[in-house]
Amino acid sequence: MGNQIIAVDLGGTQIRTARYDLDLNLLQRENTLTQAKLGAQPTIERMKAYIRKVMPAGRDDILGIGISSPGPLNPFTGVIIAPPNLHGWLDVPLRDIMEAEFNLPVHIGNDANVAALAEASKGAAQGCRHVVYITVSTGIGAGIICDGKLLLGREGLAAEFGHIPIVLENGTISSVELEAAGPAIARRVKRAIQNGAKSKVRDIINGDLNGIDAKAVGIAAADGDQLAIDQLAYAGRIIGLGIVSILHLFNPEVIIVGGGVTKTGELLFAPMRDTAQKHVLDDSYTANLRIEQSALGDDVALVGAAALVATDGGNLDISELDQRF
Amino acid sequence: MGNQIIAVDLGGTQIRTARYDLDLNLLQRENTLTQAKLGAQPTIERMKAYIRKVMPAGRDDILGIGISSPGPLNPFTGVIIAPPNLHGWLDVPLRDIMEAEFNLPVHIGNDANVAALAEASKGAAQGCRHVVYITVSTGIGAGIICDGKLLLGREGLAAEFGHIPIVLENGTISSVELEAAGPAIARRVKRAIQNGAKSKVRDIINGDLNGIDAKAVGIAAADGDQLAIDQLAYAGRIIGLGIVSILHLFNPEVIIVGGGVTKTGELLFAPMRDTAQKHVLDDSYTANLRIEQSALGDDVALVGAAALVATDGGNLDISELDQRF
Repeated sequence: MGNQIIAVDLGGTQIRTARYDLDLNLLQRENTLTQAKLGAQPTIERMKAYIRKVMPAGRDDILGIGISSPGPLNPFTGVIIAPPNLHGWLDVPLRDIMEAEFNLPVHIGNDANVAALAEASKGAAQGCRHVVYITVSTGIGAGIICDGKLLLGREGLAAEFGHIPIVLENGTISSVELEAAGPAIARRVKRAIQNGAKSKVRDIINGDLNGIDAKAVGIAAADGDQLAIDQLAYAGRIIGLGIVSILHLFNPEVIIVGGGVTKTGELLFAPMRDTAQKHVLDDSYTANLRIEQSALGDDVALVGAAALVATDGGNLDISELDQRF
Repeated sequence: MGNQIIAVDLGGTQIRTARYDLDLNLLQRENTLTQAKLGAQPTIERMKAYIRKVMPAGRDDILGIGISSPGPLNPFTGVIIAPPNLHGWLDVPLRDIMEAEFNLPVHIGNDANVAALAEASKGAAQGCRHVVYITVSTGIGAGIICDGKLLLGREGLAAEFGHIPIVLENGTISSVELEAAGPAIARRVKRAIQNGAKSKVRDIINGDLNGIDAKAVGIAAADGDQLAIDQLAYAGRIIGLGIVSILHLFNPEVIIVGGGVTKTGELLFAPMRDTAQKHVLDDSYTANLRIEQSALGDDVALVGAAALVATDGGNLDISELDQRF
């Protein structure tokens, strides 16, 4: 049996490939740009080339190839359905393509799902059996480990935290993602400025309101801008409300929150934690709970792709990793 | 190893005890009143007496005793914490008490949790691995089976579907239970009648508005009363919104809805299903989904208590039941 793993993090901007040992220690890595605009086929060829760069001479050393991809995808068939940020991808049988190319077992997982495996194996949730990972960036996704096993659901569509419905004060039904992801934060700040609100965000984006993104809002908030602080706090409260559902449904021991928007730190985390605490049924849900930032940062999906191979596509209990390694 | 199981359903009104074979076929049953007002100790003595009534002469035949109880309780320690409808129960170590009395393994589970095991073993979810059971009566609870295993969470507090937060149109935060359980339905009908609404409910309860309960509302609704129909529909929509969260988080294959309020049938189910369908992210969550009434009715927790023993307290995968029996 192989003693090394090939991991691929297919993202809208970058393709990261790496080789790990079975303890998920990094042995080699290569990054390249996805150039997603070119479409599926050129990206697949680029992935193959970069997998070859990290492939050792003795292919028998490799246990398998793990690929993290944006969803929606089917982890059981390895088909990438139609990710919004992978232009031209539609029902691509990526697992079969890569198995035919490399003659090795290939596992494919949604980026947020495999991130939960990563944090449980090598990150902020090591040793935990009830783990929720939430990513807040352009979208909001999650990965959930229930009593040691990755939660996939019947069609592999589980853990879509971002799509928990949120009823707004005017009665319309929105979702955690539509209210709290990066684009939502940017949209509300832009609208407030258009309506005459003063904000340092205007200087950061040099007056071009279409240039407002969550990063600019974060910079202004860190500089004390009240509009930016208020909008991050609103996003934090919405995510906190989603976390209340998570606590009542899963009773986890740790919730890890990662993704670009979390670089704003306590400006997001404090209102998130406060809202969760305020609306939880009972203190026993939060007494021993940790809500923390991701420990693996930008590498979380890459490590997760490796952990996906180590857990045989999420089929093994994470405690078996310790025995295996 | 024993080839029979003793099951106990401890409810606020009745104590049901029974003996089952390992296929969960009923061999003997006895019911009595809980007389919960007398407090914990008399109820425990009554349970012991009724367990003895269904205990066979050869105690070696018994694999274990399963007890379904209202929550909150700790399934790992077998301590009943403080159920609202069991007067005077506070941190009662029921498992230890019963193990000492009968010298047999005892498993204790929350009534809604074990109901999920029951429906998966002998009810409407047979053969399914991703099962959600929801009960709508005085409260709203749930039991969830993730990929064949009962979801308990770190402290055994998982699957509290009723406590999913619901933001009301005025901005206050409520919950599925506070908006859609039997007492909430009764409360809204009462308020509407006090505010001058006409309704057949008034005749059913002989004019005593304090006598309004969900059952009276159900009778009026079945008789075409518009106020009653509207309030059941509101409850159905709220539960449907909670089901949207369940679909996105668990991607189950079947959702079983039981409990007294579901006796209103399609008056509750139709708005529930419509709301779930309308707000789900993608049809793939509902294409192969069944949302159905409980098949086991009033016996669901009793069968569940037996299934709890058969699954070793929820530790075994439900597929192992078939092999075991």
